[in-house]
Amino acid sequence: MTELTKGAQLIPNGMLDDNYPRNMWWCAAHVDEVTDRPMARWLLEKPVVMYRKKDGTPVALDNRCPHRWAPLSEGRVIDDQLVCPYHGMQFGADGVCTRVPTQSTIPPSAKVQSYPLRQAGRFLWIWMGDPDKIDHAPVDMGYQVNPDWSVVTAYMEVDANWVLIRENVLDLTHIAFLHAKTFKQGDWENPASVSMEGESIVYRQDFEPSPLSPLFCAGFGFPDGKVVKREQEGRMPSLAVSFSDWNVHDIAAAPGERIDYLVRGAHIVTPGKRGETHYFFAAAFDVPDVSDEVLDQTKTNILDAFNEDKDLLQKIQRLVSEDPRGLDFPEINLGADGAGVRVRQILKRKLDAERSA
Amino acid sequence: MTELTKGAQLIPNGMLDDNYPRNMWWCAAHVDEVTDRPMARWLLEKPVVMYRKKDGTPVALDNRCPHRWAPLSEGRVIDDQLVCPYHGMQFGADGVCTRVPTQSTIPPSAKVQSYPLRQAGRFLWIWMGDPDKIDHAPVDMGYQVNPDWSVVTAYMEVDANWVLIRENVLDLTHIAFLHAKTFKQGDWENPASVSMEGESIVYRQDFEPSPLSPLFCAGFGFPDGKVVKREQEGRMPSLAVSFSDWNVHDIAAAPGERIDYLVRGAHIVTPGKRGETHYFFAAAFDVPDVSDEVLDQTKTNILDAFNEDKDLLQKIQRLVSEDPRGLDFPEINLGADGAGVRVRQILKRKLDAERSA
Amino acid sequence: MTELTKGAQLIPNGMLDDNYPRNMWWCAAHVDEVTDRPMARWLLEKPVVMYRKKDGTPVALDNRCPHRWAPLSEGRVIDDQLVCPYHGMQFGADGVCTRVPTQSTIPPSAKVQSYPLRQAGRFLWIWMGDPDKIDHAPVDMGYQVNPDWSVVTAYMEVDANWVLIRENVLDLTHIAFLHAKTFKQGDWENPASVSMEGESIVYRQDFEPSPLSPLFCAGFGFPDGKVVKREQEGRMPSLAVSFSDWNVHDIAAAPGERIDYLVRGAHIVTPGKRGETHYFFAAAFDVPDVSDEVLDQTKTNILDAFNEDKDLLQKIQRLVSEDPRGLDFPEINLGADGAGVRVRQILKRKLDAERSA
Ligand code: FES
Ligand code: FES
Ligand code: FES
Repeated sequence: MTELTKGAQLIPNGMLDDNYPRNMWWCAAHVDEVTDRPMARWLLEKPVVMYRKKDGTPVALDNRCPHRWAPLSEGRVIDDQLVCPYHGMQFGADGVCTRVPTQSTIPPSAKVQSYPLRQAGRFLWIWMGDPDKIDHAPVDMGYQVNPDWSVVTAYMEVDANWVLIRENVLDLTHIAFLHAKTFKQGDWENPASVSMEGESIVYRQDFEPSPLSPLFCAGFGFPDGKVVKREQEGRMPSLAVSFSDWNVHDIAAAPGERIDYLVRGAHIVTPGKRGETHYFFAAAFDVPDVSDEVLDQTKTNILDAFNEDKDLLQKIQRLVSEDPRGLDFPEINLGADGAGVRVRQILKRKLDAERSA
Repeated sequence: MTELTKGAQLIPNGMLDDNYPRNMWWCAAHVDEVTDRPMARWLLEKPVVMYRKKDGTPVALDNRCPHRWAPLSEGRVIDDQLVCPYHGMQFGADGVCTRVPTQSTIPPSAKVQSYPLRQAGRFLWIWMGDPDKIDHAPVDMGYQVNPDWSVVTAYMEVDANWVLIRENVLDLTHIAFLHAKTFKQGDWENPASVSMEGESIVYRQDFEPSPLSPLFCAGFGFPDGKVVKREQEGRMPSLAVSFSDWNVHDIAAAPGERIDYLVRGAHIVTPGKRGETHYFFAAAFDVPDVSDEVLDQTKTNILDAFNEDKDLLQKIQRLVSEDPRGLDFPEINLGADGAGVRVRQILKRKLDAERSA
Repeated sequence: MTELTKGAQLIPNGMLDDNYPRNMWWCAAHVDEVTDRPMARWLLEKPVVMYRKKDGTPVALDNRCPHRWAPLSEGRVIDDQLVCPYHGMQFGADGVCTRVPTQSTIPPSAKVQSYPLRQAGRFLWIWMGDPDKIDHAPVDMGYQVNPDWSVVTAYMEVDANWVLIRENVLDLTHIAFLHAKTFKQGDWENPASVSMEGESIVYRQDFEPSPLSPLFCAGFGFPDGKVVKREQEGRMPSLAVSFSDWNVHDIAAAPGERIDYLVRGAHIVTPGKRGETHYFFAAAFDVPDVSDEVLDQTKTNILDAFNEDKDLLQKIQRLVSEDPRGLDFPEINLGADGAGVRVRQILKRKLDAERSA
């Protein structure tokens, strides 16, 4: 990785390099993506294959056969074992080879790396660093499987470094410009106030009554243009996850009617190949039983908006990659970068710790 | 850049490397390309954004926001200022930031580089080196905006180093082979004589009466196959520009009728991304009021011919890029390379001067 | 080239590097591909142009004009000479320039490299190393032009290193897995026995009676599902060529009827650009006058099967190229790798010899 304090950047983000810690939980997949058929995905620049055993246990292995390096994901799952497509070696969920079709002896070194997987909310989380260093659980996302909430999830492959997305979702002032035609929530005249609560970055900001973004009205059962008071609150408990809470108050609620609502966005990023990021997203309304029609439309609208981010971030990544000046270019921080700058500080601390270990 | 006198090449052209001087005027655009909407173009391996102020002044800025590096060309022009598409910072024509939407203070370092632009003929010229070193004007192209002339212009993006195009247009003997089916002007049995006039390379060559290339007959109002005497004269006043004059004499002109005609090609090249060149072209007949139909057809015919060059030069560039021997391959000079060899000598002198400065 | 005994691999194959000997015959083309029109092909990472003289002699030259590096294959053949498309220099079959259109003197250094070509069977073979080191003929393939045999040939461009194909065709146990739906010959429970006969790798294996692969039934005039006894025998007389003999015995032949049949596959590989391989193939039945319909169908079926190899080998190549661990990844040898491992030993010996010479 590029040195984190070089050149003209205050705290360079290393977006062209290998800039992710290994000893933490990253999101590997939505739970529904992993089935009894092998599925390939690059995670932290490694090829991984995932599948699910008959009892439902998800499995993640290096997607590269130790014999002649065939991608195991091209093979089949038989009896909870993965069969290589090339010469048929079989591997169990622990990565150990259990069968070589053309011989009775199995070489003791015949195994692939197996990675710990855990479920949290609607996602599966993988630990690709040293398994002896697992000292915490993935971030709690229980609300995503709580029937009191209505949830939509989405996935995007973004050809940009994960830090670009992380900074994007922690500075909502861009909504006023980049999403002027989708979010239609232009009242970001001031930056949020940012603080640390333990290891988590937290930002908070109050807004005067104004029409709520059309992206969220339907989920709450509001008519478009509904005027509400908002408090925005964000929280990044892990480099892999941040939550964005829109606390919405119905200032015209009749006596006895519900006043307070919440829609929580979860922004989940995982480095894939160099310069590519898996971006998982969940939007959850604290309202039960929102209809599929409303959720589907909400998802479509959110994807329209997030594609504006994807498009711009990809252009930034390509620009920086193609510009011979690369990362050696001035970078100015604004007041609204409070959360983003802390991301880089946390990242630098974690990388320094891993690399000196 | 590869050393200019290495290996088997007499004067290698460094076509795989960064091989262009900065302290000179290069063509940035045709005047009509720059409007009140931002336009992106890579020039000398830098991303540049251009737009025009309300009073018509053209502006060129670094196309990379100093905040989070968004391409400014994705934003909008408001009140002669460029607004970043991401968080809305505004920059004036001098590159200085004039507004940060979420704060009242503007960081003093908030600016992008602004590049001098000047108009000459139908093109805009940019100085991307040290602005204090501007010691001359762009090459005069006044004839292109003189109503006594009829002019067509064209633009091509060529995936080849600019020197390949420069050498191509300074050795017209290739017309007999590469353009046998388009130019149909096969009478190049001898090389031109080449000399220096001040800083300009000049070549001259006389031809016996023969049918004029069909590319130019219509522009002069001649029937196809018209037999004329020709003197070809070329001039390269700058590495960015060369002129190719076809002096044509109507040897069958009736007494009192016009005898002498001239069509002048301007070959204008600008390095873009590595290995890519912007190729601007103007063909001008010293005949007023040639009809649009004739000019359009002339342009189509010229593009057919120049696409033969483009196709071959791209194949050469790709061949040299893919061949592990790269630039380290024999290169023989012929008598017809007199002008081309001087291009490399001038280039080497300029690069040496810039690099030792 | 990567050191041949590095890291975790027993005998690394250097598949990401330049890993081919030069002083040997490699296949340049099928005889029918080379005609009186120039044909371009990258061989051993060099651009080569081939054509045929009027008397039928095939010619191979460096496909890069020594003047301004145009690909000669874009030009024309005139009087057994190749004419450069750019400025018309002419080169004879020995690569020496015989004409410069714009001058009477030909520079003595004006020549391109000419490569020896020889025919064997239905293919042309090229020697791209030191021509003084030619000490043997290409592998004999006389059976391919013997009317007692019926032959189909095919060609594929594979985006994978040639060693991957070489190892693939020398370990037929993969047929049981990768080709389960095409070859349908699943009886590979044991590895073949492998030995050296002189410089040739040889493998042999006997099979109990079982239905013959549908790929070969029609060529022999057998109904699909015909039960036969088989002896498989392979032979690699050169890194460029291996033969795979399927000796088939009709155990239900009526007295006096033919019992023994042979279909011989020839697997011919040539490195092209880095990471790309030309794969020529011939399947020959020792049966005269098999109909074109049967041969065409056989070719289609074989290509279906070989595309399974191509697809997987390309995925392996891409996986190893994209995985930052590259060649530095464990690689286990199985009993069935006897022939493949000898390939690497021969390759290492040859490369060491060439590089120390
Ligand atoms: S490559 Fe997996 S079994 Fe051979
Ligand atoms: S990137 Fe331009 S204002 Fe933020
Ligand atoms: S490049 Fe071949 S003759 Fe000029």
